[in-house]
Amino acid sequence: MAEHQPFKVHQPPEIIVLGPPSVFKVYDKQFSSRFRVLRPWESPLSLPQFLAAGAQNTQAALISGGFRFTSSVLHHLPSIRLVVTTSAGINHIDLVECRRRGIAVANAASIFSADVADLAVGLLLDVLRRISAGNRFVKSGLWPVQGAYPLGFKLGGKKVGIVGLGSIGLYVAKRLEAFGCAISYSSRKEKPSVSYAFYPDICKLAANSDILVICCALTEQTHHMINREVLLALGKEGVLVNIARGAVVDEKELVSCLQNGEISGAGLDVFENEPSVPKELYELDNVVLSPHFAVFTEESMWDLYELMCGNLEAFFSNKPLLSLIPEE
Amino acid sequence: MAEHQPFKVHQPPEIIVLGPPSVFKVYDKQFSSRFRVLRPWESPLSLPQFLAAGAQNTQAALISGGFRFTSSVLHHLPSIRLVVTTSAGINHIDLVECRRRGIAVANAASIFSADVADLAVGLLLDVLRRISAGNRFVKSGLWPVQGAYPLGFKLGGKKVGIVGLGSIGLYVAKRLEAFGCAISYSSRKEKPSVSYAFYPDICKLAANSDILVICCALTEQTHHMINREVLLALGKEGVLVNIARGAVVDEKELVSCLQNGEISGAGLDVFENEPSVPKELYELDNVVLSPHFAVFTEESMWDLYELMCGNLEAFFSNKPLLSLIPEE
Repeated sequence: MAEHQPFKVHQPPEIIVLGPPSVFKVYDKQFSSRFRVLRPWESPLSLPQFLAAGAQNTQAALISGGFRFTSSVLHHLPSIRLVVTTSAGINHIDLVECRRRGIAVANAASIFSADVADLAVGLLLDVLRRISAGNRFVKSGLWPVQGAYPLGFKLGGKKVGIVGLGSIGLYVAKRLEAFGCAISYSSRKEKPSVSYAFYPDICKLAANSDILVICCALTEQTHHMINREVLLALGKEGVLVNIARGAVVDEKELVSCLQNGEISGAGLDVFENEPSVPKELYELDNVVLSPHFAVFTEESMWDLYELMCGNLEAFFSNKPLLSLIPEE
Repeated sequence: MAEHQPFKVHQPPEIIVLGPPSVFKVYDKQFSSRFRVLRPWESPLSLPQFLAAGAQNTQAALISGGFRFTSSVLHHLPSIRLVVTTSAGINHIDLVECRRRGIAVANAASIFSADVADLAVGLLLDVLRRISAGNRFVKSGLWPVQGAYPLGFKLGGKKVGIVGLGSIGLYVAKRLEAFGCAISYSSRKEKPSVSYAFYPDICKLAANSDILVICCALTEQTHHMINREVLLALGKEGVLVNIARGAVVDEKELVSCLQNGEISGAGLDVFENEPSVPKELYELDNVVLSPHFAVFTEESMWDLYELMCGNLEAFFSNKPLLSLIPEE
């Protein structure tokens, strides 16, 4: 075929999209102009049937953070050499199996960290200063009828404990320092690069904090780490913010503490069984809930689109990946 | 009577409270244990009758920011030598008449500035990241039904124009710098102490900003300064935050720009005819409204109580006032 090359129509490289991720839905057209996209979710076939029929030579996959990329999926994708996930977390990917098969893994790196930290501060300000509740009060016409609104709480001077001082936690700390908060943190290891007080014990961190902001990854160690004991240590004037993963907190205990005034309020972007949210929280004005949208801004979606394409194109042109997960 | 002094019950000094201010309502008991308080609002008499009957020897007044302390009120208070207002602003006080009568004036100084700046940032984050709207979405059970929520907007990288770089404006700037915003400002005069870009022309500031935060005092010069021209210069992706005074903005034009998508959103704590709020704004998810509560936190109320008492007690013991408004 070499003699025909000058006339050959350039075929874009083929990728399989699994999930599909939000960023793909937003930038479907742009992705589809740069790659030949296999779309199992549009097919009447089951995923294994689809993969068997059409993906035996596919070398790269773009997957959502919610798609479990297990060894059984890999079994149906014998030619895969790259998987790119649109999430920062990679606990949905069977890394061991990927390593065994020589498959490179790339992720969203810290592209979302600033947006997630911003939402943490936004939720915290909303809880302390009663913004959502005040907005509802004004928009339901109650201001002229009921007059002055209950007092909120000042952010400045508060002791903030950050649980997990990765890139998100560091951004949260930087922002809250500008508001005059005193920062301390817990983490697997003390970070020599920061001067914030370090508490290896999460209960001690809670006991010494007015506010806890959960910024850690969900692992076996962090599952239900924020339990009743930690919440009681935070205390009845304490506020919890969670923008990490729902299951880091024992949600049942959190609901009970909020209902009984054992903590003062909460701002939650994540839940244990999303999109299901404990209905007991619906009526509480001191609890602000958002639909796990901390990473979802127009700007971060565009940045993510570029990073995802950058990884895929680097792979197809044998260049170094932009956000390769290094082998440990 | 000098010979009876050892047995004389100590009479606390007398003050008259006019308004009454919120901080007085919150700390009535504490004020009343330190001062003998005249309470015209509890009397069936009209204010002039009350003052004529019982306040002819009263030397100090504690007044709210909403109480107009005019020459006609002063006419009924011949012994007054101090007026302390619980507000930062003093445009409700007839300063000329106070000067003429040798009456000292003290205010809340910059005690509220951090809280007001915090609310400005909270409203801005709420508008950009759709927090109130997301909270309503989750709490009305729509998440499992409708799925993903519309994308918000990133705060980092935005160009923020601060209108009025006093203590509140400076606090807003400091906070937003920590989020990665680029700050510029307009003001009566350029401030040599800061490195932010200065725009003497408010329209040029708006044209060069993604976000305008109104932090200036309401004066004849700033009344309706944010008019249709400024809003159109801010543009259809622009966001307005007002935590200053409602009448700095031409509210009718603002409502029209929001309804027609001529600007992108707004966070408003203040309105032209409070507590009346334009009903057209009630249904707009991109508009977050709060009931002029930027200064109302538990902590600032306590600080204000202490500052107010400090001024009153300094006056009665002939010490320098803590927050005297200097004669110009």
